[in-house]
Parts: sequence; C-alpha cells; structure tokens
Amino acid sequence: MKLASLKDKTRDGKLVIVSKDLTRAVLVPDIAATLQQALDDWQSCRPLLETRYRELNEDKIKGVIAFQEQAIASPLPRAYQWADGSAYVNHVELVRKARGAELPESFWQDPLMYQGGSDTFLGPHDDIPLLDAQWGLDFEAEVAVITTDVLAGANQEEAEAAICLLLLVNDVSLRNLIPNELAKGFGFFQSKPSSAFSPVAVTPDELKEAWDGKKVHLPLVTHLNEKLFGRPNAGVDMTFDFPTLIAHAAKTRKLGAGSIIGSGTVSNYDRSKGSSCIAEKRMLETIEKGKPLTPFMQPGDRVRIEMFDHDQISIFGAIDQRVVTVKEREKYAETL
Amino acid sequence: MKLASLKDKTRDGKLVIVSKDLTRAVLVPDIAATLQQALDDWQSCRPLLETRYRELNEDKIKGVIAFQEQAIASPLPRAYQWADGSAYVNHVELVRKARGAELPESFWQDPLMYQGGSDTFLGPHDDIPLLDAQWGLDFEAEVAVITTDVLAGANQEEAEAAICLLLLVNDVSLRNLIPNELAKGFGFFQSKPSSAFSPVAVTPDELKEAWDGKKVHLPLVTHLNEKLFGRPNAGVDMTFDFPTLIAHAAKTRKLGAGSIIGSGTVSNYDRSKGSSCIAEKRMLETIEKGKPLTPFMQPGDRVRIEMFDHDQISIFGAIDQRVVTVKEREKYAETL
Repeated sequence: MKLASLKDKTRDGKLVIVSKDLTRAVLVPDIAATLQQALDDWQSCRPLLETRYRELNEDKIKGVIAFQEQAIASPLPRAYQWADGSAYVNHVELVRKARGAELPESFWQDPLMYQGGSDTFLGPHDDIPLLDAQWGLDFEAEVAVITTDVLAGANQEEAEAAICLLLLVNDVSLRNLIPNELAKGFGFFQSKPSSAFSPVAVTPDELKEAWDGKKVHLPLVTHLNEKLFGRPNAGVDMTFDFPTLIAHAAKTRKLGAGSIIGSGTVSNYDRSKGSSCIAEKRMLETIEKGKPLTPFMQPGDRVRIEMFDHDQISIFGAIDQRVVTVKEREKYAETL
Repeated sequence: MKLASLKDKTRDGKLVIVSKDLTRAVLVPDIAATLQQALDDWQSCRPLLETRYRELNEDKIKGVIAFQEQAIASPLPRAYQWADGSAYVNHVELVRKARGAELPESFWQDPLMYQGGSDTFLGPHDDIPLLDAQWGLDFEAEVAVITTDVLAGANQEEAEAAICLLLLVNDVSLRNLIPNELAKGFGFFQSKPSSAFSPVAVTPDELKEAWDGKKVHLPLVTHLNEKLFGRPNAGVDMTFDFPTLIAHAAKTRKLGAGSIIGSGTVSNYDRSKGSSCIAEKRMLETIEKGKPLTPFMQPGDRVRIEMFDHDQISIFGAIDQRVVTVKEREKYAETL
C-alpha cells in the first residue's frame, strides 16, 4: 500500500491512497482524514485502507484523481517525532578519519541518534529556503520508517512489529553551523532545518524481498544537478538495522504512533557507489587529494533522491528539491 | 485565560477552558476540539475562547464541570515541537565548576538549546515510570511558552509576538545516562524521557505585571517529598529571555504553531533560594562539602512544582508526580 498527503489549506494535508504505479490517487475521508489519524488507529484503519488500495489498483473505484508529486506534502507534513540515527558507521568513521581522529570502539555497538525538529517538514518537491549561503547547505539521502506505538524498553521483535511504513528522507543540513553547535554539547538544532520526505510512504510488503524486516536491500539513488551523485545500497554496511534503532529510541520511554526513525546518511564501504551527501564526498576528496573540491549546495542547485525496484520502477516517488535564496524575509513569510 | 486538556480515550484529550481559580471547567467543542486545533487557528479561536472564559468566570454559562487536576493531561498531551533552552547560565556555570571546568565565554551570548522528544508527554499528576533505578532520575522545574507560527529568522519583536501561552514543565532527566550520551556528540536522547507540564496553560495577561513580555517575575516553587526544595525567581538571572530563545530556535527555519520552548532549569545566584533540580543541589554539595549528599529520585519519591501569584493563588495548578518502578514490562504496557 502506498499513502500520501495531498496539500490543501490545512497543516496536515489530506490522506490519499496512491496506486502502485504512482499515477492515480483517491481520497479516503471515510477512513481517515490525515495520515496521522490513520496511524493513531492503525489496527482498524490499515485493513480498510488495504482494501481500498486493491480497488484503486484494479480500477474498481470512483473519485480517482491524477497523482502529481508537485501537489503533495511529505507523508506526515508535521510529526510528533523525527529521530534520526547514524546507522552507517563507515560514514561516521570517515568523518573522523577526515579530521584525523579515531572512531571510539563503542560506536560499533551503541547507535548514534539525534532528536530532530518535526513541526515543519518540507514537501518532496518544495524549494529548500536558504537564508544565508555561507551556512553550507547539504542534503543527506536516507531511508526511514514510521512506527505505531512502541513500548518503553521494547525488544527487537517488538520494535520490528511496530514498523508500519517506509519512506525516503532528505535530511537537510547546514554543515558550517555544525561544528560550533556540536561543540556546545547539546546536539544539532540550527544546523538541521526542516527535512523533506518522499511523496509516498509504503507498507513493507511493497518492497517484497528487498525488505527483510530489518533493512531495505536496494540502492538509494541521488542526483545532484542531474548528475548521478551516488547509489549506495541501503542494505549494505548498515551497522544498526531499523529494529535496533527503534529499540534504542525506546530504551527509556515509549514512542508515540507516527514516530519517524531515520537511518542516517546511507553509505557503502565500496566508494565506487558514490555518496548520499556532499560532506562525505568532500571527506573522501580531503583524504585522497588533500582538500575538499565539491562545493556545498548553492541557490539554484537541485537534488533528486529516489529508489527503484528490480524492474526499475520508482517505489516512493522522488524527493526533488531546488535551493532558493531568501533575500527578503517578507517573501519568506509567504511560506508560513 | 486558562486552558487545559481533559483526558479521554483520544491521544490529544479534549480542550477545556478552566476558571481563573482552577475549580471549574467547560468543554468548547464548538470552538476547538483540542488545544492543538485552537493553536492551529489561534487568531480566530482566541477571541472566542476569551469570551467563553469570561462567561465561565462570571457563572454565565451552562455545562460547567468540576476541574480536577488528576483528570488532566498535559495541555498538549503530545506536541510537534519541544525545544528546551538552558537560559539560566549560572546553573550551567555551576555544572562546569563542579567538575572543575571553565565556562566558555560564548555561553553568555549564544543560548544552549536541545530538541526534546514531544510525542508522549506525561500528565501533570501521572506517575513517572522508571525502568532502572540506577539511571539517576531527576526533575527539572522550568517555565515554558507555547508559540504560534514563527517566521524563520524572526527578530525579537516577532518572537515576542508569537508567545501565546505560558506553562510549567518538569523536564524529567536520567542523570546517569547523560555523560555517555553527551560524549557521543549528538545531544540528549535516552537521558530525557517524557516530560510533564502543568495542568493549565495560561495567556500572558493572567500573569499581570509578573510578565513583562520576556520573563516571568515570580518564584517557581518545588517540593521534594513534601519538603521545600527551592523557590528561585524565574525572572532573576535568566540570561536569555523567551523572545531570545524563540529567535534562536527560529534562526534557520520557521517554527510551527504549538511549539513549546522551555527555559531550562530555573536557577538563581542567590543559593538561599534553593534549586530546581537535584543535580544542582548535588553540585553545590560537591563544591561545599566535597561530595554530593542528596540522592536522585527513587521509587515512591514525589516532586511538586507550582507557581503562585502575589496573592498566593496557584496560577498553573501543580505538577505533582511520584516515581514508580516498572518491574514487569507487561504492567507498563498498560500505559500505552
């Protein structure tokens, strides 16, 4: 099943079911008005939505509209939780190596995770507003899951059972604000502005054998300005799988339905696969050539993040965003 | 105006207006079903709610029910954002001093703030579940504001204008998990389980001259096991006022309506006023007596946090919580 949120005048959009081929959609106000509402009562809503999804794919349903990614908000336009892991530890190792530091051994056993802002996500095709070009804007291509309620102290099986949807993320990052912010000791805040998510979130069965209950075994494809930037496999070199990340998040408290748990930047040891963020490429350049060569994103630059199944069909639709300068704050007010 | 959320079977509770003396309440489904709904359309809802509030206080309204703090969830039982500052820098200075470290000069100009989990808040009288007594459970008594939408790059005036409600917080902390977590560099996560908020959130006018648009000039009173623990004045030694904290949070992105911004542990240089968390008291003991003497909270311990106006009337009602052990995870599942 594929679900999306149609932009309207409300803050949460309207829940739509989207056809498997991402061409058609249908509103389901009789089941749930918003995706969060469906997640709040997932046990009841899921079977009803699944039935409607089958009818949509079999063309046995009325009120079908064309599905246009540009008219779509992130599946959860705002969420009660966005917690992002850093599951590809080889990426973290690289960050350290580029500055000549050792990776603590514990990083291979104890997941890194930060609490992200979740009150104002960007849509998958929304511009990324940049107030100051010196901030060093970067994308981070990731996979994420959305959970139902998770018990405090949940074990791996409970964590796995709580995964109800998968989606892609562009975890927008302001690289030049990170060093000062992390030095203060309280984690990211200003350096992580609003993230964007893929047009649709899908139930795990949509991934067929590419989903083993723990990881997504497909390449995550990123293009920067229409050029292939990376296609590392999300199932390779993922040190901490999704159940482990969820259990980590739930160690001391329960998680509410609709919590989004991210993988962190997807990264493979096989560097021929490219990277999922500019920072990683710059680190490789620093190690190989003594200095970073690829600039961070500038106004006008475009990033596209997508994942294809074995038939080369886009599973989640594409995150496709341009960076725009916001010179006049008044102009920016319109986005409120 | 005083607003609260009555516990029911839903995740967001039912919005009620509460009388100034905290004895009576009335549902307002014709205006907004939940507090978040009212905040989403605050410009329209606020005058309607204010009229109803006057009618409630003047006994000119039907359907009035008794207001019982035990039946109340936090004003926002879950929120799209909980961002907590550390505005009382003398407290941060003390943390450093206790471990023999200097406070960086920049800490006086650049606010510390962390992104907190906001998907599952505790109610003001809910037990605090503790899965492991070795985690070092502590309270942090704080003041917080709830904002309407805030423009990215908002200035002080815009930030101040966005403040629509005030409330109290118990920012529950697991002290023994903090050092390892902060050492990893990504901020708090497991060390900050679900926070609890005061029974009611109030519009700034309720504080009269004690609110100057920037700070709350009243003591924040904390009792631990029925003994006065501290009553520092929230308007004294607050290095960063609320508009500054909001502008800090909004530096690189807009904030969504219903964002909760906390002050951090209230703390005065005048140590005769006591403390707003056990950790601070332990640091003072370490500095004065060579070692901490006051233990962290154990199962059965009770914390009560409240603020009174100049007539000794409780403004927000009381946060009043007991710590409970959760020995059997099955029992804890009931709280889901």
